[in-house]
Amino acid sequence: MDGLWSGRIATGAASIRSSAIRDLLKLTAQSRIISFAGGLPAPELFPVEEIAAASELALVEAPLATLQYGLTEGYGPLRELVTSWLTRLGMHATTDQILISAGSQQGLDLIGQLLIDPGAPVAVEEPTYLGALQAWQTCRPNYLCVPIDQDGLDVAALERMLANGARPRFLYVISCFQNPTGVTLATERRRQLIELAARYSLPIVEDDPYGDLFYEGERVTPLAALDCELHGELRHVIYLGTLSKLLAPGLRVGWVAAPRAIFSQLVMLKQGFDLNTGSTAQALAYYACRDGLLDRHAPRIRALYHERRDAMLRALERDMPKGIEWTRPRGGMFLWLTLPEGYDAQLLLKHALDAGVAFVPGQSFHPSGRGANTMRLNFSHSSTAQIDDGVQRLASAIRAMESDRA
Amino acid sequence: MDGLWSGRIATGAASIRSSAIRDLLKLTAQSRIISFAGGLPAPELFPVEEIAAASELALVEAPLATLQYGLTEGYGPLRELVTSWLTRLGMHATTDQILISAGSQQGLDLIGQLLIDPGAPVAVEEPTYLGALQAWQTCRPNYLCVPIDQDGLDVAALERMLANGARPRFLYVISCFQNPTGVTLATERRRQLIELAARYSLPIVEDDPYGDLFYEGERVTPLAALDCELHGELRHVIYLGTLSKLLAPGLRVGWVAAPRAIFSQLVMLKQGFDLNTGSTAQALAYYACRDGLLDRHAPRIRALYHERRDAMLRALERDMPKGIEWTRPRGGMFLWLTLPEGYDAQLLLKHALDAGVAFVPGQSFHPSGRGANTMRLNFSHSSTAQIDDGVQRLASAIRAMESDRA
Repeated sequence: MDGLWSGRIATGAASIRSSAIRDLLKLTAQSRIISFAGGLPAPELFPVEEIAAASELALVEAPLATLQYGLTEGYGPLRELVTSWLTRLGMHATTDQILISAGSQQGLDLIGQLLIDPGAPVAVEEPTYLGALQAWQTCRPNYLCVPIDQDGLDVAALERMLANGARPRFLYVISCFQNPTGVTLATERRRQLIELAARYSLPIVEDDPYGDLFYEGERVTPLAALDCELHGELRHVIYLGTLSKLLAPGLRVGWVAAPRAIFSQLVMLKQGFDLNTGSTAQALAYYACRDGLLDRHAPRIRALYHERRDAMLRALERDMPKGIEWTRPRGGMFLWLTLPEGYDAQLLLKHALDAGVAFVPGQSFHPSGRGANTMRLNFSHSSTAQIDDGVQRLASAIRAMESDRA
Repeated sequence: MDGLWSGRIATGAASIRSSAIRDLLKLTAQSRIISFAGGLPAPELFPVEEIAAASELALVEAPLATLQYGLTEGYGPLRELVTSWLTRLGMHATTDQILISAGSQQGLDLIGQLLIDPGAPVAVEEPTYLGALQAWQTCRPNYLCVPIDQDGLDVAALERMLANGARPRFLYVISCFQNPTGVTLATERRRQLIELAARYSLPIVEDDPYGDLFYEGERVTPLAALDCELHGELRHVIYLGTLSKLLAPGLRVGWVAAPRAIFSQLVMLKQGFDLNTGSTAQALAYYACRDGLLDRHAPRIRALYHERRDAMLRALERDMPKGIEWTRPRGGMFLWLTLPEGYDAQLLLKHALDAGVAFVPGQSFHPSGRGANTMRLNFSHSSTAQIDDGVQRLASAIRAMESDRA
């Protein structure tokens, strides 16, 4: 960077670095590479015709709402629709608690700007969503890393931290089919966590982009609904939802359901960010979804991803050398692989790319810098044949690395 | 705010307040009020059919690019199209210097996060765009206010500040038909400013949403083009453009053209904000504009706004009491009214709303808190009949206020 600019970069921005996900996303453009790296939904399931019909309808019925500036809070009919979805999930939230955001990612950015001062403690699962760490990079929090296991966040470990005096600004948790590990916070732990939040006045940011992508059992009740059950309204939980996984990420339409105490401040921050989330995208989303499209469409997505998850689990079982472990997610888009202690997933990535397969090394999901021997695999974006082939390539890359080490 | 949240609000967010524009925008929903308050384009000129056709085409020809996540930098074909527009304006910028943003507003947010530390000096015109002050609220800069006159920014005043040792992170300037005053930076001053930038290593953020809305003469050459002329490339100027005024603001599609030295950092910040600007909106914008729609459409907008500007100038001439002054913008969407010293435009607004007309009091455009006797009038969103009527109502509100004062 030249002298004109170098002395002028803000402290928060000076430390930001390109992310592994970002650089890897570029690799997925090469067709010979089977990519388990991205976090992309399967494009063959985008309801293209329904969105085309919605666009036509929106521009005929509501051209003004579709093309003009809109209220920062979002498009009224869409906010009402979202409210009805949240009610179905057990939340007691009203439309005036719903802010339409540019995907959940903008919800995370809003929360960072609202609640994080440099050095302030913020509790996160470790590993956690890389995009959250990126959203909060300029805020420079001090992360309190709470371990997770097969049942999600280790609530007992969090309780010990709180009992020892930790007072995080909030706890960030991806409650269902977590990114990156695929694990889900168990029901009993959910109740404990909501009680803990009440006892310690702990705000919780619940990020729930994958909750509807369940392949076993039923939709898990969000923490936000349990918070409402206990207090009659959203009190401790800010809930983030999105259409990116069920409709199309290119719309960039998500929502923040927030306790009344902070709603207007979120709206004012959002106004400075971009005035309002795209009116066009909001109108398209509303017209596409108002007649229950998601109820018809979600089962299709679940059926396909279910197959792909199973294909990946089968292939891993078949091909992976001994000593390698992985999660068995009941939903979502990712699973998590742990190599033997001492293995380096970044190094493996080089071998894997040579073999024609990509993944995301797990270290960047760890605020603590741990996890060098872990990696995230996406199963939503590849066909079962690609998954089969890709896992084989991955296994041969692991063997190639092992023989290099030997 | 309850105790759960009140102790947890970030320092930057704690001071943000609802804006006059925002609260007033809500008033415009009442039909009996003629609003000169907003900054809205005329919806009757939205090219609804062209956008509908573009949407259909985008979803047939490029469903993936329209609905999937995209690169943070933006949709390739749209970035190339923007590059060609900038080339026509005299800039030497390549596609890899173009970042597609959620309107210019997000460009401002990006710049704030990139360049402003709390307390850092930032030079702005006074008065300046309220949305920039909002975007930078959480960054808490120390504003150096440079006066403006009929020829735009007082470059000599800025030079004195720099000669006296001021070293702002950047100068923010709306170079054509400025919001809120409507004045345009004169050509000679543009050359002086670009030389000043070179001499003092001063970065300039040039916001140019209105440049194509000229009603006299020709398109004014942006500062960014003069910077390129002097240095062979963009060096001192970050240039912000948008489709909000020429196509439709509801798309939320704008762009940042930036010097190479800072481009990748802007992209990384943007990734944390929202991953990418809506793919759907970008594809619609590209398919709508690729065959030269804006060249055909801009003259229609100019013709209509030209009429409306003239209608407002005529009505002001006819109705305004002595002692009131206003600007005569050669383009854009706003003009600026100055009441006699000691008058209070906030107080006038109450009378005006009673009389059925709205505007934005000018004080909030002044970082220094000055300008209590000033106000912004929008002429793009009302018919000539409404303008005629509204100015009459405004004049009677002024007389009502005067008799209250007497």
